[in-house]
Formats: sequence, C-alpha cells, structure tokens
Amino acid sequence: MNNRHILALSGGVGGAKLADGLLHALDDAHLTIVVNTGDDFTHLGLHISPDVDTALYTLAGLANPETGWGRRDETWTFMDALARLGGETWFRLGDGDLATHVERTRRLAAGDPLSAITADLARRLGIRADIVPMSDQALRTRVHTDEGVFDFQDYFVRHQCRPVTRSIEFSLAPDTAPAPAVLTALADEALDAIVICPSNPYLSIAPLLAVPGLRARLRAARVPIVAVSPLVGGAAVKGPTAKIMAELGVPVCADEIVRYYGDLLDGFVLDVRDAHLRERIALPVHVTDTLMRTPQDRVRVARETLAFAARLTPRR
Amino acid sequence: MNNRHILALSGGVGGAKLADGLLHALDDAHLTIVVNTGDDFTHLGLHISPDVDTALYTLAGLANPETGWGRRDETWTFMDALARLGGETWFRLGDGDLATHVERTRRLAAGDPLSAITADLARRLGIRADIVPMSDQALRTRVHTDEGVFDFQDYFVRHQCRPVTRSIEFSLAPDTAPAPAVLTALADEALDAIVICPSNPYLSIAPLLAVPGLRARLRAARVPIVAVSPLVGGAAVKGPTAKIMAELGVPVCADEIVRYYGDLLDGFVLDVRDAHLRERIALPVHVTDTLMRTPQDRVRVARETLAFAARLTPRR
Repeated sequence: MNNRHILALSGGVGGAKLADGLLHALDDAHLTIVVNTGDDFTHLGLHISPDVDTALYTLAGLANPETGWGRRDETWTFMDALARLGGETWFRLGDGDLATHVERTRRLAAGDPLSAITADLARRLGIRADIVPMSDQALRTRVHTDEGVFDFQDYFVRHQCRPVTRSIEFSLAPDTAPAPAVLTALADEALDAIVICPSNPYLSIAPLLAVPGLRARLRAARVPIVAVSPLVGGAAVKGPTAKIMAELGVPVCADEIVRYYGDLLDGFVLDVRDAHLRERIALPVHVTDTLMRTPQDRVRVARETLAFAARLTPRR
Repeated sequence: MNNRHILALSGGVGGAKLADGLLHALDDAHLTIVVNTGDDFTHLGLHISPDVDTALYTLAGLANPETGWGRRDETWTFMDALARLGGETWFRLGDGDLATHVERTRRLAAGDPLSAITADLARRLGIRADIVPMSDQALRTRVHTDEGVFDFQDYFVRHQCRPVTRSIEFSLAPDTAPAPAVLTALADEALDAIVICPSNPYLSIAPLLAVPGLRARLRAARVPIVAVSPLVGGAAVKGPTAKIMAELGVPVCADEIVRYYGDLLDGFVLDVRDAHLRERIALPVHVTDTLMRTPQDRVRVARETLAFAARLTPRR
C-alpha cells in the first residue's frame, strides 16, 4: 500500500497508541491526528488539554507507560509544595508536564489559537505528525449523573467515574468550528483514509463529531472511514467506555459502537475476542487482536487497519 | 528589653536574613515585615513577587543557602521541559518555587488581594511573623540605564545589572496605597520600633517609601526608626548597591545611606569595618559586625539592633 495522507480521530490513551502505530507504519506519508478537546479545562489558572497532551507525549516518546497519563521520568516537587500551600491537588500535575500547561496558557493569553500552539509544541518535541485540536473554540463535555452535572475532568479524575451517567452534554460557543488545519487536511487531494482510533465513542469521539460541520466534512472527504473497536471481549481496555454504555442502557457490545457511529463508517476493525459479533455488523469488518501492549502491537494494528481501509470504497 | 511589636522594612536576601534574626530574637513579641513589591513582575503568565518569596522561604527555613534565591531541595524538571518547548528560561523557576507563583496567580485572578494571599502562604508555611507586601496595588521599579529602560527583573536577572544606571523610576497606579496590614501595624499601640533592614536603599527600600503615604505613616508612628547598613567596608554584601551608588554619582559610603534616608532615621547600625565613618553621621550610631554568615549572626545583629532602638527616643 502507498498511503499518502491519513487522518486519525483520537481521544486519550488508546487513541494515542494507535496514532503512534500509524506514525510508525506510515513511513513517508503524512499523518494528521485530530484530537478531542472536550476534556480541556482550566485548573490552577492553567489551560489543560489532557487528550492533546497524551497525543504529544505519546508521539514524542515521552509518555509515562505506568500511569497512562503525564510524562515519564517525571518529578513531583511542584505538587508537594502546592499541597503544603493548601492548593488543590486532586489533579496531579508533574513538574515537566507543567511546562506544557504554563507555556500553552501564556500563549493563549497572548491571543494565539490552540491549534497554532499545539503545532509548535509538536514541532519542538520533534513529532513528525500534525497534531490538531478539533477546534480552536471551547467545546466542553459535561457529564450528567445521579450525583449532579460535572465537567469532564471533575467526573473522570476527581470522582473517578463513580457517579452513574444519565447523559452527556456538549456545551459549546456559537462560533465553535473545526480548527483550520482539520479542514485543510480533509480537503487534501492526497488524503487516503480516515481512522477513528479506539477511544471512547461517547466521551472522546462524540465531542469531535459535535463540532459543527465536522461530521459532515468527514463524510464529504470521500475516503474510506474505518473505526477500530475500543472494546475487547466486551470490555474497555482502559477507562469507562463499558460502564458508560451500561449506564446509558446500551448493550456493551462492539456492534453497538458500529450502530453509534452510523453512516459515518465504511468499515470496522473488530477485536478477535468479539469475532462472534461479526454477523451483526452490516459493514466490511476486519478481525484482529486489537490489544496494544507493545510498540510492535501498535504498528501491527495500524498496518492492518490501513490495509483494510485501502481495500474499502467509501459509500458516498 | 521587652519588645512587644517590631515592624521591619525589607527587600530581598539581606533584609530577609535580618528579619529572620528578628523573628528568632523576639520570642513572643509580634513581628511585621513589610516587603518591597517593586520587583514584582508577570513572567510566563505568572505573578512573581521575588522579595516576598525570599521573605517567605527564609522565614520558613526553606531558602536555598547557595543561590540566595529560590528554595532548597529544589528540582528543575519544569525548566528543562520548558526549554525543550522553546519557552523563556532566563528567569529560573524551580519546581517547588513554581507552586507559590501558580497559587498566587490563581488567587489574584480570583480577586484576592496580594496581602491576603501572602498572609495565607505564610500561615501555611508555619511562619510566626506577618509578612506584608508594601501595597496591594502595583508599584513597579524601572531602571533607566545607558542601554534603555528596564523592568527591575529584566535589569537584575536578564541583564545581570550590567547596564549603567542613570536613574530609577517608580511607576505606580493612581490608587496605590499601603496594604491595610501595614497601616494596622503602624497604628498598633504596642509598636516599639521600626527596623529598616540591610537591603538596597535605592532599589529595595525606596519603592516602599514611594508608596503614597507610607513614609509619612512611618514617621507618624512615633517609635524609633533604625536602619542597618547594607554596606560592609564600603561594599555591598550582595547585589548592586555599591555599583548603583557609584553610577548615580553618590560616594559609596555608609554615611551616604544615612543622608539618603534623611529625617526618617533616629539611629543607624554601622558595620565595624566602616567605624571610621562614625563622626560623619549626625545620629546615634551602633557599631557592630553586621555580616550575617550564620543563623547565629542573624540573631546577634537583630538583638543588638533591637537593644539599640530601645535606647533611642524618636525625634518626632
């Protein structure tokens, strides 16, 4: 296969792992990763973009393999000192991680768009892919639960996903639009495929699709769109996907995710442990082991996904 | 002597050392340290109060004895990560130090006055003295030099005091006033003395005296005011005091500092190496070794200064 430009949609850890695999599988081809910013929030006066940072650190080889968030070789002097000063410590910010937030916040305050700042950070970290926040405007994911309405990080980190989800809301400004680089990538004649990474569809990919115009632009690109299942054997590899599906009254099955994405998809990569669900999916399906434990796993899943997409014809 | 309440005016390192000595010399008495904020600046989007921090860290026993600024047991992961991201690194911010700046900036943005924030930080750090920024409004020291006009930290840190000083300007907002706690302390019936610490008179104490109303309030307190000489043998212990005096065309002599403070002083603590200047000073003088190399030195200079002040009658 001779891919020229691949666009990936990604949330946090699982998505970043496949994006990393894509980067290594693609050799000279161009990779654009559009990242969820619905989880962004202001904490301690700093603008934090958790999924963008996970993408930056993962693709720069700086990610912390133990935690699944933050940087490796991290120190925690700031957090210890902040605790002594009575500051908020429920959201753990490592000393090196902090540099990203401080620099981003400084530049946002100076009027630079999030996408331009992210592009510069990626360049400084030597990342060969384009990492693009889905929008330069704020679209915030809010989780309605039996214990109240929470901003995403409040739900995810402070309350550790414990409250029962009733519904998910995307709160956005009237001028919210896809970041310019998203539109440029989607208009690229060399674009060969769109890959929806194995991130939480409801919490991480849904905000992307809620950016006005973005879903329609994906379909209008007229290239195959494939999603890689975030479920493995009917369970989420990490995070609350399965818990949220259950709480929303949806069967915790990979075919339900295909149904959720609806007419967006041209093909679906199903985990081998869920192969029995194949006949329930009315789309081309590729079955493989989607679990990415090692860097080699990432590249293998990426290669198979790209080869699968290359065999597909977009429905539109 | 039975001191009940002492008020000290302080700039950075030298001032903080004497303040620390005063705290340990005073036992149960009350100590209020009014600190210069003319050096405050916004850096990386963070509000930094260098002299307030030096006071906080010194009195909390957290100061870095090697550098004279910042905290001991510090790590530098933030700075290294920021350098990699292309951020500004001329002002070194340690990981633990950063907690102070982030927490202060967050609270200022929330509308809390600098003096209330400082009081809380001091309390959290277990400091028994009141550390009060001279004003809750911005009064900024600007150094006019042969190479242009610089904000203080720009001159002091980035340009390492190299440019030749022509004059010093204090830029202030029309509503600039002493912080409320300064006025409360000066109105305290129990106030026994005011000590001007051995800080740079032109750069560190002058901004304090430039806060509208503050100099008059000091005189109106009707307690002895004594200054401890920042010069030792005609040279500054640390910092650019002697260099600036020379550049401003002023003889680099302790008696010149007495002249500079003018009718504010009731007495002067002169270093033993400058004892020959005694007859040039038309005020009560106490001669001692003012060099504070050890914690014991700090307490000894503090005790001698307090005993000296106790013998004085305010001129007003």
